[in-house]
Amino acid sequence: MQTPRKIAIVGSGLVGSLLAIYLRKAGHQVHIYDRSPDIRKINFSGRSINLAMSNRGWKALDGVGVGDAVRAIAIPMGKRAIHLVDKLNFQNYGQEGESIYSISRGLLNRKMIDLAEDAGAEFFFEQKIWDVTLDEATLHIGETERGAWEEKKYDMVFGADGAFSRIRHRMQRQSMFDYSQEFLPIGYKELNIPANADGSHKLDKNSFHIWPRGAYMLIALPNLDGSFTCTLFMPFEGENSFDLLQERKEVEVFFEKNFPDSIDVIPKLAEDFFKNPTSTLVTMKCFPWTFEDKIALIGDACHAIVPFYGQGMNAGFEDITILNEMMGKYGDDWKMIFSEYQKSRKPNADAIAELSYRNFLEMSSKTADDRFLLQKKIEKAFSDKYPEKWIPLYSRVTFSDRPYAEALAIGDFQDAIMKQILALENIENKWDSKEVEDKILELLQ
Amino acid sequence: MQTPRKIAIVGSGLVGSLLAIYLRKAGHQVHIYDRSPDIRKINFSGRSINLAMSNRGWKALDGVGVGDAVRAIAIPMGKRAIHLVDKLNFQNYGQEGESIYSISRGLLNRKMIDLAEDAGAEFFFEQKIWDVTLDEATLHIGETERGAWEEKKYDMVFGADGAFSRIRHRMQRQSMFDYSQEFLPIGYKELNIPANADGSHKLDKNSFHIWPRGAYMLIALPNLDGSFTCTLFMPFEGENSFDLLQERKEVEVFFEKNFPDSIDVIPKLAEDFFKNPTSTLVTMKCFPWTFEDKIALIGDACHAIVPFYGQGMNAGFEDITILNEMMGKYGDDWKMIFSEYQKSRKPNADAIAELSYRNFLEMSSKTADDRFLLQKKIEKAFSDKYPEKWIPLYSRVTFSDRPYAEALAIGDFQDAIMKQILALENIENKWDSKEVEDKILELLQ
Repeated sequence: MQTPRKIAIVGSGLVGSLLAIYLRKAGHQVHIYDRSPDIRKINFSGRSINLAMSNRGWKALDGVGVGDAVRAIAIPMGKRAIHLVDKLNFQNYGQEGESIYSISRGLLNRKMIDLAEDAGAEFFFEQKIWDVTLDEATLHIGETERGAWEEKKYDMVFGADGAFSRIRHRMQRQSMFDYSQEFLPIGYKELNIPANADGSHKLDKNSFHIWPRGAYMLIALPNLDGSFTCTLFMPFEGENSFDLLQERKEVEVFFEKNFPDSIDVIPKLAEDFFKNPTSTLVTMKCFPWTFEDKIALIGDACHAIVPFYGQGMNAGFEDITILNEMMGKYGDDWKMIFSEYQKSRKPNADAIAELSYRNFLEMSSKTADDRFLLQKKIEKAFSDKYPEKWIPLYSRVTFSDRPYAEALAIGDFQDAIMKQILALENIENKWDSKEVEDKILELLQ
Repeated sequence: MQTPRKIAIVGSGLVGSLLAIYLRKAGHQVHIYDRSPDIRKINFSGRSINLAMSNRGWKALDGVGVGDAVRAIAIPMGKRAIHLVDKLNFQNYGQEGESIYSISRGLLNRKMIDLAEDAGAEFFFEQKIWDVTLDEATLHIGETERGAWEEKKYDMVFGADGAFSRIRHRMQRQSMFDYSQEFLPIGYKELNIPANADGSHKLDKNSFHIWPRGAYMLIALPNLDGSFTCTLFMPFEGENSFDLLQERKEVEVFFEKNFPDSIDVIPKLAEDFFKNPTSTLVTMKCFPWTFEDKIALIGDACHAIVPFYGQGMNAGFEDITILNEMMGKYGDDWKMIFSEYQKSRKPNADAIAELSYRNFLEMSSKTADDRFLLQKKIEKAFSDKYPEKWIPLYSRVTFSDRPYAEALAIGDFQDAIMKQILALENIENKWDSKEVEDKILELLQ
């Protein structure tokens, strides 16, 4: 058991709330600050993408006994439903019974705050943190950046305050702090497919729906109330861009032409399109993540990634799993805990950033490509027969807790093999032959 | 002629001062702010590397008629003096008569401020800019970050305030601002070789002296007063690191062993070693560099690079040359001037960042490598015979004003050719043969 400490967490999002539960279970006093109002008392923002909880997320939730409470608000999706302009294909994500889980970010956040309060964490909403004194773990709180500030001293401070973290902002001003932020030229906008009158879903409930169109795409994830949260990803400028959709008529014509089967199910298309903001997508990397035994960044505050692998929250939750492991291993030596935590997580955070960036191409283009679907079929057949020799990349990321960095490296190796396999003459007709199987075995040597 | 505007420049360094002269010659009112005292009235800091002025720098100075004033305080260096542990080699930088020029940063800065004042720019020292309102080109100035601030409104503001620019800091907080800062694990420390009693130089005056030792190196550049400014570049940690040189004795033993011929010429070695700070090396990239027709970043404020190509100041001065070109081209359309300026400079800034990063290896390791020196000999012989077919990379960067991005691309192409040439059997003995020449000609096709 650790000696109880007085700990502040900045940010009451998913990672901040779950971290609070872990720290409470370890016997610490926990205060959580957030600049926003209590999300349980306000409407959601209309700028969210539904979450896809997978193995790493569940592991962190189950590790502190709150997995089942979250399962109650999650919908399993075992496959991709791929909406081409003229037909609908399905592609399983993993083995029979393996699913990712659609959860509304807002609903989950409310639930996590409830659970953290039940565990004894104290929340302070609408408290703006403007600065932190690193070597004293002291927060500076006030109404405005230039107004009067109050000081709150803690034993340690966790920055779980997201991609634009104020805690990191202070760390950035130290020497030798590596930092990068890079925006995609692609934005996203939330849309909505409402439930049928009887509360049922208008599309297959247990699928991740995707309309892959190359440089842009639409996705839809199911909600408990029968609705789907849709997200349109599209370039800001150029051909097929947000820039070209300025008028109601332009939006309607664009959807009729490119997403014909969406028209009937998105009744408030133009209304939502102009009401909801167009949001940006950023990849943020930094190092170090910690300062002595005083400050640690966690989740998006130290590794914000683009959403195309559905791993943002899962990676943040896995930070907590690893931090908790280090707490078990090093007891009261928080310097060691923080140091080993960042050493373990940094290469994996970089790897999932890279995988997520690459996956836009997979979702928006490759899922509409017969060669890619053939590759997936070959990989699946081989993996079914030799599960110890071949875990497909998607499964290693989503259905295992093997390190992301390993997934990236092995994924590249597998991809080089599959390039050679797909180059075999007449592969379309012999993809499930002994010859192909033997060739893969040979290339794996 | 442009319509006169009221312009603020933040930063009275080399780029800020030269920019002021250009803007004054174009008829504008120019105020220059700096948070530090007037460098003409204080001692230098003991943390500088001497500058190596080359073609791009001279072009910018001559473009506004101040080149000769600077030539008066510059010392030509036509070659590298390569101090191996047991011998001294020389390597010319370019053709006969081509030199880079050693200048003390402090002396040059004083001179540039004098020249800018002569041109009518007004300087405001010890004025701390804490923030800028981008769309109003308004500076916020005060004693402390949290104290009272005064506002100064301009028609436009230039951020020439270096790698840790406050002006960029505000731009960074906009959405869609790409940014990265990456520190090398290598630090540097200034040391000094004093003049002989008669004022003459203790080492060859017209050489860039270098002691290449692989992971670390020492360099020395001549000053007008007979002294040399030396810089030791070395890892912070590990084998042969600053970390291991904590005691006077350790420093002396290290220099005796690794830089034996430096011992007699650096009399205050240990004293300076512990008096002068160990400084960090950062590469900083960002985009955009400008905000509408109100704000523009220039020099290190938008592209800080490591010093191993001697191009930091040269690249910053070239920003001014290009900005001035755009002023000539687009008159009062400052939106267009800023937009074309950043579009032209960004790829070249990225290229010189990459070239500078790579050049540490060339300076610290390759200059001690016979194969590398052989490669340079082959390139020089071929380039002498076919100057229109082969400009060596170093010459293209240093003695031309061709774009850096072109230098990087062509340099990579040339390097691939030289790899093949050096792989020829018995190349040591036939390097200046017709066969090798023909082979290069063939590979250039």
